[in-house]
Amino acid sequence: MSSVETFLSLLGDIPVQTVPALVKRKSRDFYWYSPVLKRQLDSCFGDCIVMPRNEEDLLHIARVARETKTPLTPRGGGTGNYGQAVPMEGGAVVEMTELNKLLWVKDGVARVQAGMNMLDLDRALHERGWEVRMYPSTKRTATIGGFIAGGSGGIGSVRWGGLSSPGNILGLRFVTLGENPEALELRGSDARGILHTYGTTGLITELEIGVEPAVDWQDMAISFGTFEEAAVFARDIALQAGIQKKLVSVVDGDLPPFFASVREHVPDGASLVILMIAPAGIETVKALAEAANGHLCYEANTREAEDTSGATPLYELTWNHTTLQVLKKDRGYTYLQCGYPHVGTLEKVAEIRALFPDDLMMHLEFFPMGGHVSCAALPVIHFTDEERLNYIIAEHEKRGVNIANPHVVTIEEGGMHRVASPALAAIKKRYDPMLLLNPGKMLSVKTLKAEG
Amino acid sequence: MSSVETFLSLLGDIPVQTVPALVKRKSRDFYWYSPVLKRQLDSCFGDCIVMPRNEEDLLHIARVARETKTPLTPRGGGTGNYGQAVPMEGGAVVEMTELNKLLWVKDGVARVQAGMNMLDLDRALHERGWEVRMYPSTKRTATIGGFIAGGSGGIGSVRWGGLSSPGNILGLRFVTLGENPEALELRGSDARGILHTYGTTGLITELEIGVEPAVDWQDMAISFGTFEEAAVFARDIALQAGIQKKLVSVVDGDLPPFFASVREHVPDGASLVILMIAPAGIETVKALAEAANGHLCYEANTREAEDTSGATPLYELTWNHTTLQVLKKDRGYTYLQCGYPHVGTLEKVAEIRALFPDDLMMHLEFFPMGGHVSCAALPVIHFTDEERLNYIIAEHEKRGVNIANPHVVTIEEGGMHRVASPALAAIKKRYDPMLLLNPGKMLSVKTLKAEG
Repeated sequence: MSSVETFLSLLGDIPVQTVPALVKRKSRDFYWYSPVLKRQLDSCFGDCIVMPRNEEDLLHIARVARETKTPLTPRGGGTGNYGQAVPMEGGAVVEMTELNKLLWVKDGVARVQAGMNMLDLDRALHERGWEVRMYPSTKRTATIGGFIAGGSGGIGSVRWGGLSSPGNILGLRFVTLGENPEALELRGSDARGILHTYGTTGLITELEIGVEPAVDWQDMAISFGTFEEAAVFARDIALQAGIQKKLVSVVDGDLPPFFASVREHVPDGASLVILMIAPAGIETVKALAEAANGHLCYEANTREAEDTSGATPLYELTWNHTTLQVLKKDRGYTYLQCGYPHVGTLEKVAEIRALFPDDLMMHLEFFPMGGHVSCAALPVIHFTDEERLNYIIAEHEKRGVNIANPHVVTIEEGGMHRVASPALAAIKKRYDPMLLLNPGKMLSVKTLKAEG
Repeated sequence: MSSVETFLSLLGDIPVQTVPALVKRKSRDFYWYSPVLKRQLDSCFGDCIVMPRNEEDLLHIARVARETKTPLTPRGGGTGNYGQAVPMEGGAVVEMTELNKLLWVKDGVARVQAGMNMLDLDRALHERGWEVRMYPSTKRTATIGGFIAGGSGGIGSVRWGGLSSPGNILGLRFVTLGENPEALELRGSDARGILHTYGTTGLITELEIGVEPAVDWQDMAISFGTFEEAAVFARDIALQAGIQKKLVSVVDGDLPPFFASVREHVPDGASLVILMIAPAGIETVKALAEAANGHLCYEANTREAEDTSGATPLYELTWNHTTLQVLKKDRGYTYLQCGYPHVGTLEKVAEIRALFPDDLMMHLEFFPMGGHVSCAALPVIHFTDEERLNYIIAEHEKRGVNIANPHVVTIEEGGMHRVASPALAAIKKRYDPMLLLNPGKMLSVKTLKAEG
């Protein structure tokens, strides 16, 4: 009996899936945005899927994984772009989507199981008068656990900052793969070693998150003759403390033709500012847009679009969906994730944009970094080869623009530090001494030797 | 018959008050914070009080004022500090407090009569699940119209910016003193000529304002060994996008002994950070305070304190109440209003503080200016003479700190420009061509000649 067969035989009544086509499909995420990751990960698959129904199941899976030395790769909605959910050394994909309950909401805090779908979560919160502070553009398919373990921010970040901003995630519960697998609760900064680690340091079962009172958001797209005007307007809106907003994005004039849902409304070649604005702010935004020579070309109710089959809420044109809209038509593109400084932001954007007129379609997302309003760029990049891509990255970095490289599989290299961290290695050693959790995704692990 | 007697005789059944002691009392505000204004305004009184019950009354008052050339000085709660409500040329004080109804609330917008008390307004909103975005520290006595016509920001500004930030005030209705007095509605930027003009350009009857979902705010006071540590911590909290807050203030170690309600909880000489934090953020703030060597020395529920006779919500130790707490014990003090740059904020605060160790007890209020988190200082100043006060002001300005001088009576001099504005003069000419509204408070008016 192979080790995986032994693993499966010890799982009792925990649901599993071994049909190869399904296992292959559940071993994928959106890593193929990156031609580099595509080459690296196309041949990586798990051997089976396990589907825990509760924490007890997960503890049992952890024990059996240790016993049979089976790697475990947790999976939420499979919407990551770094190959977070792609098993690099086989083993079992742990599909978390049965842990999908909202446990409680009170006074701006919600407790939720990690595998809950983000749209389901937002709807369940909405029924109680609340909504999630931030969500990825993949809200319809992503899970809260996947977002928090593999993402960094999204729609809502313009108000609440990133997922790592203190106060957004208050605590979490997770299953360890230590000598005696157990479920632990960590709060505040203690939880940071488990967040955004792609499941390499534990299997998150529950999350306690800040939520905000429900708002009846309005989608607004405002077109401008030039990218510069659009960017200035977007930054101005992001800086307006009196206007409540959930999203402030800008896309270059080359991009709207890829947006099937709105392109007929956008003047040829116009750059677009995409906003989600609270009802109280709509009149003010319209007046400011008019004063800035912007043209409101599209308006809709965000939740109505979200609830209507075939309709596209504007947030599905932003964040990582901007690139997806292009890839739907042409697989010859990829993207970057660039953090711009909060001082001289737009000058720096202009500088980078001027350097690469043929490679790059500019796309900005405004939000505070360390409390200071700035923007990230997620430019869509015409891919020629890896050398050119690395050159573009290097030119950004040389000019003081931070790159969170989406063409690497490890936590460290995808962040801003790119080096192994003894602190992360210590957490890994503590909660996963046999190095079974999502192998291949942590650089720091190379300083460790698997126990057992 | 004197002109005032004629005026009164023409008012029909509109309630009036002529008992001299009452008229004198209603001709005062908190101008006496400033020894300079005290000298200038102590002898200024109205001749009578009129108390309109509705817009019709106000229109009638406007017509009669024109007919008899009677100056009108509108009054809300009389909590201003620039002598906004002190009649400088006699005439009638128009007491607006009978226009005190919340008209409607919907989707984050409220329509309210200008004379409504701020605490009453906040309570009425709270019953419907909302609250005011910002209020002055004089919430218990101030009116919404007085706040907007004479204030600039307050508790809530750390989230929503100033009253002048687009989106906070959506529109207003006001009665003009034009040839045919009428009630007009202005929206958005068109309303700016009426806001913060001390009633010199019209008599505001209704306001449409942004409101926010009600939060169960928690008062927290955190003590630090040094002012520098307190200021760094406060700025950090102000910059934390993930923590929902309504107030971030700092007071120097000399000030807590003046705060009867909390001084027993504050270690000797400790500087204090005063916060109002949403429930979801309390755990995070406590953890951050501990990490910064702060000591949480006082906690309470803001609304409970507000509702309990004899209790003091912490916001009554902040903004202009900081100075008031000192003046309650010792009239030898006054204050300044200083806008610090958002770059190098705390270095500049330290520079100013070091210049005037004997004159000045430092007090900071953090909030975004133009979208960038910065702070205003409202230092309590040991008053020696006007020369010294002007020297302190000049030393601030020389170093790039803006002064909104609270020792002058005109709109322009109390702001940052200090010059007459043709735009403001044009608005004045349009809505008050006879120059009857709150005479003496507008510098720009000197370019005009009264009509009629």
